[in-house]
Amino acid sequence: MTDIKAVLRAQHIETPSWAYGNSGTRFKVFAQKGVPRDPYEKLADAAQVHAHTGIAPTVALHIPWDKVDDYADLARHAREAGVGIGAINSNVFQDDDYMLGSVTHPSAQVRRKATDHLLECVDIMDATGSDTLKLWFSDGINYPGQDDIRARQDRLAEALAEVYERLGDGQRFLLEYKLFEPAFYATDVPDWGTAYAHCVKLGPKAQVVVDTGHHAPGTNIEFIVAFLLREGKLGGFDFNSRFYADDDLMVGAADPFQLFRIMHEVVQGAALHDLVGENEQSTKPFGGSAEGSAPRGVAFMLDQCHNIEPKIPGQIRSVMNVQEATAKALLVDREALSAAQADGDVLGANAVFMDAYNTDVRPLLAELREEMGLAPDPMSAYAKSGYFEKIAAERVGGQQAGWGA
Amino acid sequence: MTDIKAVLRAQHIETPSWAYGNSGTRFKVFAQKGVPRDPYEKLADAAQVHAHTGIAPTVALHIPWDKVDDYADLARHAREAGVGIGAINSNVFQDDDYMLGSVTHPSAQVRRKATDHLLECVDIMDATGSDTLKLWFSDGINYPGQDDIRARQDRLAEALAEVYERLGDGQRFLLEYKLFEPAFYATDVPDWGTAYAHCVKLGPKAQVVVDTGHHAPGTNIEFIVAFLLREGKLGGFDFNSRFYADDDLMVGAADPFQLFRIMHEVVQGAALHDLVGENEQSTKPFGGSAEGSAPRGVAFMLDQCHNIEPKIPGQIRSVMNVQEATAKALLVDREALSAAQADGDVLGANAVFMDAYNTDVRPLLAELREEMGLAPDPMSAYAKSGYFEKIAAERVGGQQAGWGA
Amino acid sequence: MTDIKAVLRAQHIETPSWAYGNSGTRFKVFAQKGVPRDPYEKLADAAQVHAHTGIAPTVALHIPWDKVDDYADLARHAREAGVGIGAINSNVFQDDDYMLGSVTHPSAQVRRKATDHLLECVDIMDATGSDTLKLWFSDGINYPGQDDIRARQDRLAEALAEVYERLGDGQRFLLEYKLFEPAFYATDVPDWGTAYAHCVKLGPKAQVVVDTGHHAPGTNIEFIVAFLLREGKLGGFDFNSRFYADDDLMVGAADPFQLFRIMHEVVQGAALHDLVGENEQSTKPFGGSAEGSAPRGVAFMLDQCHNIEPKIPGQIRSVMNVQEATAKALLVDREALSAAQADGDVLGANAVFMDAYNTDVRPLLAELREEMGLAPDPMSAYAKSGYFEKIAAERVGGQQAGWGA
Amino acid sequence: MTDIKAVLRAQHIETPSWAYGNSGTRFKVFAQKGVPRDPYEKLADAAQVHAHTGIAPTVALHIPWDKVDDYADLARHAREAGVGIGAINSNVFQDDDYMLGSVTHPSAQVRRKATDHLLECVDIMDATGSDTLKLWFSDGINYPGQDDIRARQDRLAEALAEVYERLGDGQRFLLEYKLFEPAFYATDVPDWGTAYAHCVKLGPKAQVVVDTGHHAPGTNIEFIVAFLLREGKLGGFDFNSRFYADDDLMVGAADPFQLFRIMHEVVQGAALHDLVGENEQSTKPFGGSAEGSAPRGVAFMLDQCHNIEPKIPGQIRSVMNVQEATAKALLVDREALSAAQADGDVLGANAVFMDAYNTDVRPLLAELREEMGLAPDPMSAYAKSGYFEKIAAERVGGQQAGWGA
Repeated sequence: MTDIKAVLRAQHIETPSWAYGNSGTRFKVFAQKGVPRDPYEKLADAAQVHAHTGIAPTVALHIPWDKVDDYADLARHAREAGVGIGAINSNVFQDDDYMLGSVTHPSAQVRRKATDHLLECVDIMDATGSDTLKLWFSDGINYPGQDDIRARQDRLAEALAEVYERLGDGQRFLLEYKLFEPAFYATDVPDWGTAYAHCVKLGPKAQVVVDTGHHAPGTNIEFIVAFLLREGKLGGFDFNSRFYADDDLMVGAADPFQLFRIMHEVVQGAALHDLVGENEQSTKPFGGSAEGSAPRGVAFMLDQCHNIEPKIPGQIRSVMNVQEATAKALLVDREALSAAQADGDVLGANAVFMDAYNTDVRPLLAELREEMGLAPDPMSAYAKSGYFEKIAAERVGGQQAGWGA
Repeated sequence: MTDIKAVLRAQHIETPSWAYGNSGTRFKVFAQKGVPRDPYEKLADAAQVHAHTGIAPTVALHIPWDKVDDYADLARHAREAGVGIGAINSNVFQDDDYMLGSVTHPSAQVRRKATDHLLECVDIMDATGSDTLKLWFSDGINYPGQDDIRARQDRLAEALAEVYERLGDGQRFLLEYKLFEPAFYATDVPDWGTAYAHCVKLGPKAQVVVDTGHHAPGTNIEFIVAFLLREGKLGGFDFNSRFYADDDLMVGAADPFQLFRIMHEVVQGAALHDLVGENEQSTKPFGGSAEGSAPRGVAFMLDQCHNIEPKIPGQIRSVMNVQEATAKALLVDREALSAAQADGDVLGANAVFMDAYNTDVRPLLAELREEMGLAPDPMSAYAKSGYFEKIAAERVGGQQAGWGA
Repeated sequence: MTDIKAVLRAQHIETPSWAYGNSGTRFKVFAQKGVPRDPYEKLADAAQVHAHTGIAPTVALHIPWDKVDDYADLARHAREAGVGIGAINSNVFQDDDYMLGSVTHPSAQVRRKATDHLLECVDIMDATGSDTLKLWFSDGINYPGQDDIRARQDRLAEALAEVYERLGDGQRFLLEYKLFEPAFYATDVPDWGTAYAHCVKLGPKAQVVVDTGHHAPGTNIEFIVAFLLREGKLGGFDFNSRFYADDDLMVGAADPFQLFRIMHEVVQGAALHDLVGENEQSTKPFGGSAEGSAPRGVAFMLDQCHNIEPKIPGQIRSVMNVQEATAKALLVDREALSAAQADGDVLGANAVFMDAYNTDVRPLLAELREEMGLAPDPMSAYAKSGYFEKIAAERVGGQQAGWGA
Repeated sequence: MTDIKAVLRAQHIETPSWAYGNSGTRFKVFAQKGVPRDPYEKLADAAQVHAHTGIAPTVALHIPWDKVDDYADLARHAREAGVGIGAINSNVFQDDDYMLGSVTHPSAQVRRKATDHLLECVDIMDATGSDTLKLWFSDGINYPGQDDIRARQDRLAEALAEVYERLGDGQRFLLEYKLFEPAFYATDVPDWGTAYAHCVKLGPKAQVVVDTGHHAPGTNIEFIVAFLLREGKLGGFDFNSRFYADDDLMVGAADPFQLFRIMHEVVQGAALHDLVGENEQSTKPFGGSAEGSAPRGVAFMLDQCHNIEPKIPGQIRSVMNVQEATAKALLVDREALSAAQADGDVLGANAVFMDAYNTDVRPLLAELREEMGLAPDPMSAYAKSGYFEKIAAERVGGQQAGWGA
């Protein structure tokens, strides 16, 4: 149990700055009270999530949504609020130029512009001390024949190579894949295989990020997690959940058992025990070859764009959901599991597995929080803190942050 | 062949006013040149589609996007432009009040507001002479437990009954279903069964509309079409196509064979031959019971929200795609097909079916258009007409129409 | 808590005779030791499941797999073993005549044969005292054009009407739907809407059965359950689980949260509280109209065809999984839930819901079993019972039961 | 046009020996008249398909279904019948030992047996002159926890490496992936990414085979084809079609437009023009590196297990469907397409693409066949040949071939 708690303390879950702003569907974005007007206010909100959970110490930025004149100042502000800057997320999908693509656009001029933005994001990494660049390309085509699928791969490879070259020591990029949306016929990085193939060619600083909402129906996500960990190519997660497409619900809300299975593979892949230096036969999951220059560790990030949920409580609940799934995964009796597996005892092995899942870990986590000097229930602690009432009163006027700002 | 042409002349495909404005995804709406600023300009654009195809004589309105002070004037304007007003589409998803639902909202006050809007749409039907109200509810919930699934059905039934009562002679409403989006856990009218069950209880003026993009993966849409026609409950189509979710691509673009199969069931259900009075044993598909007060006929409507396609050509191509699929369906050798089916000749029956599909009907349709006094190729005729250059030059300034206006 | 236990005691879960025989996939059926050779041995095995769980007192039969000369004798044997005969399942998919369909076959002769079999099943109901006939039709077509979708509905309606007429007082049939397999293009009863529409026309003795493995990806099954309960048309469940298609895994194994959500709707629909007469405003879920002749109550049945699982333990675990989900559903604080729903408190309502799901109900169920005079853990009790060793030793020679026998 | 015909003449489509035997679903295998009793009779049937289409000169074998004492004799028999031996398909899923896996089984003994079978298949390649081994593993698990996902990858890699080593000059193996069935939770080679990753590590003699029925819903198969061709890792196709899961319908029957899109990517990837030596900048798609030892060329194979279709006509139609899609793909005006793509002309590029698809290529193919000395319509030519009547009369008694024999 001590070990489990040590791991749970060491696991960090990064929240995204954009989760604190307004977001929604193509049908309507419902504005909410108290929503931040700038990156500084977003960081303040993120700090609340960390204050109540104790395990969300970093915040991912999205450029240009979080563009500021002085990134060093922003980083300082974050530190003062109790959080750090996490991954830098590039955005090459919201300029009119990108209607037909960014780095895979038929026009060299548009590609140049897009790649320059990616390079600028590395500059921001340098300025903020971030070690991770997250690359998501909405690039793709809506109609068969609209563009050449293969030529677009060539253009993608070229841009990725240029960005890879720009990465400094200890920096990496994570390449995200997504089945569809906003491209509706062929997406240029539609699945893990595509992301993986590009990353392998580039080297250890290029890794794959698994967004749990970006797969075809029926895809076994934990298989992908296990496979990428085995290959040393799992860079991190963009957590969220969905019943249908990329619904961006709170992680663990749609299929908590799936989240548990994913965390089980993370445990099996030794990615968590690495955190506490307990893993003698470290899997060196990130291509930590001789160069040794790639950042280590699976990044556990949330990527959710809430429509109807209150923002800060939505993030707190999400962090708790990941933590509960992790705790359950750590409770699996691995020795008993291995024995049943070796025996070909189908129901026995499954029973060991389900035994952990069916355990109510909330008392354990309440205990852990109290040991960490936190309230046992982060949701009610936040509700009682008066923070929401404060921001709802103070943040009046100005332009609320959203996907477009 | 004469018969086929007669049917093809009689088939009308309605275009939606919103297809001429800007639309897109949650990630970005790309503005286009020449986009209308008001309903009058939308009707002018729709008239272009009819001018070149000869089979798109009506335009669906969307309230409040097409709200005007004087609907009689709008209808007159449409007539002068060569088109008529088609279905009135209600919108109860874009006010802040509707964040948690409209007619199924937990609050009676919100439900009242939503139902009042639906009643107002019937007023607009009266004012414009439209005989069809299209009801789509984005209502639903994002999280298990968020609201009571069953109570929401009760509220839905209550609102539908009130609107049904308001319908005049010769008026109907079409109830639309959709698997998901923007609701991400449970949608209140998620499938045809739900829409059908409500319509059956209400009576002949309530019919189901099939939006071809609103189904779960793998759903056999033509089965639903056949079934609803058999029950006299198919009110019409919202045509579009998709590879993934509700992608809103041009109808026939993603799976032209599926569109053909759908039109085949329409032909089998006698819904097309009704148009030319050729069908002695009319299926009376729309509950044409003693009351006789329901409008007859399957409404063939487009419902597409294009993201990257030029607007008017996108509609012309879509109308042509429906027409091509219809022509192929009419070419099926029904006698040979029936004989092979009766014999249990699996490959033989399929061969008869595919023979029609594999036929290139474009020469036939070019001929038909010339007989109708039109250019044989609507796409190039429009391109050469100079209309786009004209609106691109003229429509400068003002607020371009979009989903929010 | 007393109430919860009373309901849990009253809930009965029926196991299917075919679950005790060999089954598998098209690739291979793996034979297992101790598998029954005849219906008598199947009933003996089913009695074991009841002996250890206390809530599986009936067994569904499958005709002709369970054909015997003297059904009264079989029923007596069952009673002596401690179980009763449950639903009679018809089989019109394994004769060569049925290659192109049974009741929807183009040939009147084949249809006659199939309908006669269904009528024979009612005879067996009379002989065994069963009150429920389960109808599953594998009927459908593999190729577009192969047969007329609509004509097949006419034939289906005709056969159903004949069987309906044959039902005696207190008898009902449950119509099952399935998206696909073994028909691969159009299935004649593919979804709940189709089954529902036929049942509504027929009357109160015709109800829909929901097989949890028979839906398109993404289908919200609990919505269907809620809807059918509201309409008084939910006859029962065929429980199993799946990750992909109709995988026939143990119920609750693939998505335990979904099973909980389903049971929550059952609770909301008062179908469980009816069991203990606690529900003043009974929902009369089965068309309990004036005629009053339809059997009451939702039938909770397993329908699983295990491939690699040991048979009896697979059924015990499945029964336990349903019971655990039911217990959790009964634990939902319905008052707090309603209050949060009425307030539009999205996260609050979801939290009440999840609180029940996250509770570990195994101690409660162990306690319940001990109160019922059972061992607290049915799996280990069965393992220790020596029953398997006994049948493995005794059941040597003869023809093991399977799908074909 | 000359070029197109040259390519169409050079394209060979391999039929599988198992398509001539009985097959079906887990519910029922319907026996058909005239079905072969041994590999010799299967080859005779396959020769009929070639005789009437002119482009099906090889037959894939399945071991042990096609096990004979003297493979040289079998190859000689094939040659005399006018066909050759194509790919050797291994089978490690039908022994009782393989219930929990073959090369990924927890037991080293079972893995040894399975690997030995694969090595034996290479022996048969040597004996028959076949240059291609097709590896499909049904390996996987049905329940979470049943076995260790990652450990199974280690075992898989070990077995593949051993087989790879055994391959001779000019021999290759194709690794097949499949989303699910018969494994229902986690399949060990579930997607192209997994197959690709293993093949890249092994070297140029290991390539990926794309079975068109083995993907998750919504997967863009032509993207995978384009990607694998770009990487030089597309070894071939297992053609069939499906509406739902792995339905094994005739290729092109469910979605002919998809088949066209796939063939378009094959054309774009120069895989067809390689056939006629027309491609100056050959893509060397099969890792044709210095070693030069891998066989060249994409293998176009059918892999269909027909349930209700007559066997030989089902293969003829399938071959014709691939040929029609190929002809349409060759008709795409690549220059016009490239120009529209470069201009970002979405509808224009799509129109060029659809223009080829909408063309009726049947007259062209009839002409081609006549030039090749064949009847213009293979289906009617076969029907008139009397072959079926002959085999139906002659092949009486004995054990019909099926999946198990």
